[in-house]
Amino acid sequence: MFKPFDLKLAALLGTLVRAMDNGLALTPQMGWNTWNHFGCNIDADVVLSAANALVDQNLTSFGYNYVLMDDCWHAASRDPDTGAPRADPVKFPNGIKGVVDQVHALGLKAGIYSDAGMYTCGGNFGSLGFEEIDAQTYAEWGIDYLKYDNCFNEGRSGTPKISFDRYANMSRALNATGRPILYSLCNWGEDGPWNFAPTIANSWRISGDIMDSFDRFDERCPCTQVIDCTYAGFHCAMTRIIDFAAPVLQKARKGAWNDLDIMEVGQGGMNNDEYITHFSFWAMLKSPLILGMDLTSMTNETVSIITNDAIIALNQDDAGSPANRIWKRTVADGGDLQLWQGSLVNNTFVIALLNTSPKNQTVDVDFYDAFFDQARPLLFLSLAIIDYLCLDTYE
Amino acid sequence: MFKPFDLKLAALLGTLVRAMDNGLALTPQMGWNTWNHFGCNIDADVVLSAANALVDQNLTSFGYNYVLMDDCWHAASRDPDTGAPRADPVKFPNGIKGVVDQVHALGLKAGIYSDAGMYTCGGNFGSLGFEEIDAQTYAEWGIDYLKYDNCFNEGRSGTPKISFDRYANMSRALNATGRPILYSLCNWGEDGPWNFAPTIANSWRISGDIMDSFDRFDERCPCTQVIDCTYAGFHCAMTRIIDFAAPVLQKARKGAWNDLDIMEVGQGGMNNDEYITHFSFWAMLKSPLILGMDLTSMTNETVSIITNDAIIALNQDDAGSPANRIWKRTVADGGDLQLWQGSLVNNTFVIALLNTSPKNQTVDVDFYDAFFDQARPLLFLSLAIIDYLCLDTYE
Amino acid sequence: MFKPFDLKLAALLGTLVRAMDNGLALTPQMGWNTWNHFGCNIDADVVLSAANALVDQNLTSFGYNYVLMDDCWHAASRDPDTGAPRADPVKFPNGIKGVVDQVHALGLKAGIYSDAGMYTCGGNFGSLGFEEIDAQTYAEWGIDYLKYDNCFNEGRSGTPKISFDRYANMSRALNATGRPILYSLCNWGEDGPWNFAPTIANSWRISGDIMDSFDRFDERCPCTQVIDCTYAGFHCAMTRIIDFAAPVLQKARKGAWNDLDIMEVGQGGMNNDEYITHFSFWAMLKSPLILGMDLTSMTNETVSIITNDAIIALNQDDAGSPANRIWKRTVADGGDLQLWQGSLVNNTFVIALLNTSPKNQTVDVDFYDAFFDQARPLLFLSLAIIDYLCLDTYE
Amino acid sequence: MFKPFDLKLAALLGTLVRAMDNGLALTPQMGWNTWNHFGCNIDADVVLSAANALVDQNLTSFGYNYVLMDDCWHAASRDPDTGAPRADPVKFPNGIKGVVDQVHALGLKAGIYSDAGMYTCGGNFGSLGFEEIDAQTYAEWGIDYLKYDNCFNEGRSGTPKISFDRYANMSRALNATGRPILYSLCNWGEDGPWNFAPTIANSWRISGDIMDSFDRFDERCPCTQVIDCTYAGFHCAMTRIIDFAAPVLQKARKGAWNDLDIMEVGQGGMNNDEYITHFSFWAMLKSPLILGMDLTSMTNETVSIITNDAIIALNQDDAGSPANRIWKRTVADGGDLQLWQGSLVNNTFVIALLNTSPKNQTVDVDFYDAFFDQARPLLFLSLAIIDYLCLDTYE
Repeated sequence: MFKPFDLKLAALLGTLVRAMDNGLALTPQMGWNTWNHFGCNIDADVVLSAANALVDQNLTSFGYNYVLMDDCWHAASRDPDTGAPRADPVKFPNGIKGVVDQVHALGLKAGIYSDAGMYTCGGNFGSLGFEEIDAQTYAEWGIDYLKYDNCFNEGRSGTPKISFDRYANMSRALNATGRPILYSLCNWGEDGPWNFAPTIANSWRISGDIMDSFDRFDERCPCTQVIDCTYAGFHCAMTRIIDFAAPVLQKARKGAWNDLDIMEVGQGGMNNDEYITHFSFWAMLKSPLILGMDLTSMTNETVSIITNDAIIALNQDDAGSPANRIWKRTVADGGDLQLWQGSLVNNTFVIALLNTSPKNQTVDVDFYDAFFDQARPLLFLSLAIIDYLCLDTYE
Repeated sequence: MFKPFDLKLAALLGTLVRAMDNGLALTPQMGWNTWNHFGCNIDADVVLSAANALVDQNLTSFGYNYVLMDDCWHAASRDPDTGAPRADPVKFPNGIKGVVDQVHALGLKAGIYSDAGMYTCGGNFGSLGFEEIDAQTYAEWGIDYLKYDNCFNEGRSGTPKISFDRYANMSRALNATGRPILYSLCNWGEDGPWNFAPTIANSWRISGDIMDSFDRFDERCPCTQVIDCTYAGFHCAMTRIIDFAAPVLQKARKGAWNDLDIMEVGQGGMNNDEYITHFSFWAMLKSPLILGMDLTSMTNETVSIITNDAIIALNQDDAGSPANRIWKRTVADGGDLQLWQGSLVNNTFVIALLNTSPKNQTVDVDFYDAFFDQARPLLFLSLAIIDYLCLDTYE
Repeated sequence: MFKPFDLKLAALLGTLVRAMDNGLALTPQMGWNTWNHFGCNIDADVVLSAANALVDQNLTSFGYNYVLMDDCWHAASRDPDTGAPRADPVKFPNGIKGVVDQVHALGLKAGIYSDAGMYTCGGNFGSLGFEEIDAQTYAEWGIDYLKYDNCFNEGRSGTPKISFDRYANMSRALNATGRPILYSLCNWGEDGPWNFAPTIANSWRISGDIMDSFDRFDERCPCTQVIDCTYAGFHCAMTRIIDFAAPVLQKARKGAWNDLDIMEVGQGGMNNDEYITHFSFWAMLKSPLILGMDLTSMTNETVSIITNDAIIALNQDDAGSPANRIWKRTVADGGDLQLWQGSLVNNTFVIALLNTSPKNQTVDVDFYDAFFDQARPLLFLSLAIIDYLCLDTYE
Repeated sequence: MFKPFDLKLAALLGTLVRAMDNGLALTPQMGWNTWNHFGCNIDADVVLSAANALVDQNLTSFGYNYVLMDDCWHAASRDPDTGAPRADPVKFPNGIKGVVDQVHALGLKAGIYSDAGMYTCGGNFGSLGFEEIDAQTYAEWGIDYLKYDNCFNEGRSGTPKISFDRYANMSRALNATGRPILYSLCNWGEDGPWNFAPTIANSWRISGDIMDSFDRFDERCPCTQVIDCTYAGFHCAMTRIIDFAAPVLQKARKGAWNDLDIMEVGQGGMNNDEYITHFSFWAMLKSPLILGMDLTSMTNETVSIITNDAIIALNQDDAGSPANRIWKRTVADGGDLQLWQGSLVNNTFVIALLNTSPKNQTVDVDFYDAFFDQARPLLFLSLAIIDYLCLDTYE
């Protein structure tokens, strides 16, 4: 049984269904992550420069408040006596706690990365079998957010139950710390986290890693659909991730979101129109909005994209209801046209058309398609609402 | 080894193979369910109004005798002392038992809903881990029917055994109450319930939720076949559910049926011809016939569809043998033509042609195709039988 | 690592790799089964009439020596005191042992049927959880062969290990009796028995049940390939089973065969040319050769098909090597042309062309394709051998 | 999270992530194996002749240093008293240790073969359940390398965890011997070893066995993709294995490689241009380079192919980064054109074009496609590097 929730129900669920009962991510989380720009080359300066940039550029006032350290903060090994995780003493001379304290002092929240396997994807020590000491240590460091990856998992996937059990171990460990820590599950969509993750995590990745490209096919992201993908890969173009997301979007709940991956906006592989599309769809589809570019050298265009109030409002709308793809039509020039529609609070809607073809396209949109989700009319629609939806928020 | 049962065998099986040994649903169950029209907005009045309408409109004489409360009858939490389920005290001031007693007083049977997971799909408390106390409480309330859903199942799917074990827990718990309770398994077809459910349940859903549309494609119901579908979704058009059903229909047994979902007849998204098709196919394919419209405001056309004796007789026929699709042929205008044939008692047959294309179609049906299931003649056919089959029961 | 065995190795394997170490079926088993013609309507007379017909028609001299009772020999329940299986006292007034003794007296061997589930497919008591007492009882009855089916298996499938464990239980139980009992595994190809069954069974079915048709598509046998089929179904046309078999044929070993199902030869749904094809391919592909027609009313043509020495010799050839499909080419009239090639003892070969199109076809066969399995020449071929292969054994 | 490692990271991983912590195969292993040419017909002379040929032909100076005994070295049974494995006393009169000592005396390393199942593929005793005594015995014999196959595995596959656990048993057993033994996992790609094997093995096969053909389709290798292949089969043409490899190549790590199977170079089923392609791609894709031809009768052309310094350098490059397929384009004549690009040490690259069509093709390669992996420029490219890449190493 599944039915689009009416608004009364959606509001109710905000209190009833929370991932891990941690009360976090009631709207999709927003912030910045080290990976897309810096990869493995991170240190305390990289993190703090970004944290300062979030404040200095006033991005915090738009909601970007998490500073996330991705892979490669690690020392070569755990503490040999206690088994606790340790940071690289050269990269982080004051430890992770030193950085986190400074992030907190800026009014921001701090995130870290680990992996539900023997090693992280970058070859550092993973957390499989170390969930409790790792969660406890993160809490002691003041960590507010954990991204939890999937490399070197010792074959512990293949049924939803196997994957659930592995990721639930960390969920329980985080809860047991008593500190609210947003839990960002990253198993690349294996075994359908949209089905098993909502009760244990605040968000779950649905695909292999994003590539900074609008639509280039890359064989390392080989699946055509996410629902029967047995090899997530990586290097997935932005519009492919949108394709992947379409059927599973409705599995999101307040506190439990589909994660379309860190955004590539401002990284240079797409033009501004493409980045506007990227940002707008991540917002409408209720993905976490995690920035990935170098915050210290953004163009004005980049800043204007990521600070568009109206688009951010779509993401943070209290209804928590991802937009749906009403149709997708191949066009003769290659690519396709897509119509998307989403419900917002106060019986308002968002409508979007996406053109992935290489040429401009003129398209007739059926009034019925645009404004009716089921096969029968939603009678409370009014013209006033329709007008609002036609605003071009990037003019 | 699998062979269409001859009638002698089929009659025998009626006594030998019963789901849960509860002796229920020897023909597909019939009744009404709150979900399709009322969704989460239910209370005692909604239930009782429908119960009274079943009686007042004389639908009971056609066999509609179950009144089913779907999701959202729940209090915010279980009883903190006993762990027992509780109803929302505002919606159900006299509790579920109060409503059930009144339903029984009308000569009807009463059904309830829960979920083999941590929460129901609507975010209320689920029954996973609470099977025994829940079944016991339902029995104490006088419940006659349980619809058992699949949301938030903690990853407990992925092999037939994992799904079987989860759903068998409730089956055993229901049996242990000593009260005959029809068990309607609703896991959306995951892991092939047509294979694993017949010994533990009276019916099993085969797909994601129905949408009130004849044939509109909706990306939220993405699978093209049910037998390898790894994401059931919802918003499945009526004719897609027929497509899904075609290969698995023969898994039905007396007491154990494929459930094509609550019907949308009278809900407004299809025209009357389409609803006639909907109702006729649900009947011929031996789905439970569960109404979903508002019973207090049906049109005459709707009433005439759901009270067609001849069609209901196809559903309740004692042979218990679902019709088979003999062929499906794409037509140039889009859509397809389909020929269906089913065996009934006394060596009679039902033959149906389905046109899902947008235009009227003329079709030649091979005598051989219409009347022979295997590749060799069924010699006992007679012209008298053939004539009977040509009656148009909706004229 | 997999390589077509050379003849020396194949001969060696005959002694090394035996299913269950029972020394049976070193060439594919041959015999007759009740199901295809009599279905559930069997009794002692049906079985004994067939046994006598095997002898009277001299079929035993061609190797047909197993008389197999399929489903529906059962009493309504097991012995309430011992739990042992019992025969229907009306159908089998002298019990199964009475029939088996008479079968043995005719110089034949006797087989029985059960199911690795709660019920048989016909709704009788199954053997799941009763493996030891059932195997012991069969041994006491003098049974020589068990066909072991897959209905109502309580969800115990989904990985090769789950299926293996369920079927291995009966394998061990049969071995423990000390009586050599040929073990015919029938799980319709679920979880790939070609991979897991060779060490526990003498043969394994690869697909849903056969239908007596040359090539008619039936939706109840929906898979297009056997290697990723998640729903075996039934009503599989003869040439579809050949398609299913093609990729897995090489998994056969001496004592462990792919079972393409009971043959339909002589049942009436195909013409004689089609039945010749049916019989010849079952033989070449090293399927057990189990007759399914009414042995007491065979036409001369039917007898000539099933008593063709040259074809039977292909099946019983000591190399035990199934033929391979070298190519399959779609033809414009629908259907396809196929080239098959198999290795026999003494460096001889069998070559076959199959035309499934509705018209006669002329085809050029590349000498290279016909006589070379790998990409390089098999240098020991001689013209004398080639001549032999061109004999038309049905002239 | 997955990102092409920068060179600094790649170098780091060489020390951090080692399969089994055994320090072996930091570049892909090179050597010779008995199977492709000799199959089951091996003995001490076959092995020692090849070992001597490696030395005499100076192949050792190119890196070929492993001499691998594949299947059929076995006695008919294990030692009945100790359960230890034994060699065939006729084929190996001085035992395996006798041969190994002589191989070692030549300055080479010695490998052996077993199977994670009840029998080897050739029907000899397997190691399932005998992991410890087998590993210990191999160590006592002085074995340096184990190829570990997948036949007759008792259904122990179906999820990555089931396969991982079975193969990890031998990994632990090998480690426990204290002798560094390269562990070559050969489960034909079942359950995705690219995901689960890197922490337990030095290499893993990704497909069914190779066939000595450039591109011939063989039904016994039926899958079209490796990532959803449920039946690996065998007889896979060389270019099909390249297709299979494309999406999973990046799972390789230093010490943990995708194994594209023993090479067929010099076996006779392809022409020299095809073998050059074969060898070059195995090298670029970082497969182990295991020769399979008869080393005692190689043509000059064969020797020149396998001793091409520049190509071997691609394979043994310290970056350990397999090439990626940038695009694959179908051509009108059948077959396709492919562009491959790989990263090497010192910011150098390898670019390769592959033409699998039957005709010569002219192709324009976009500068952007050839030299940029992500969607944005790799700015450190220089023309000097580009020139180097254009050298034809086989002129």
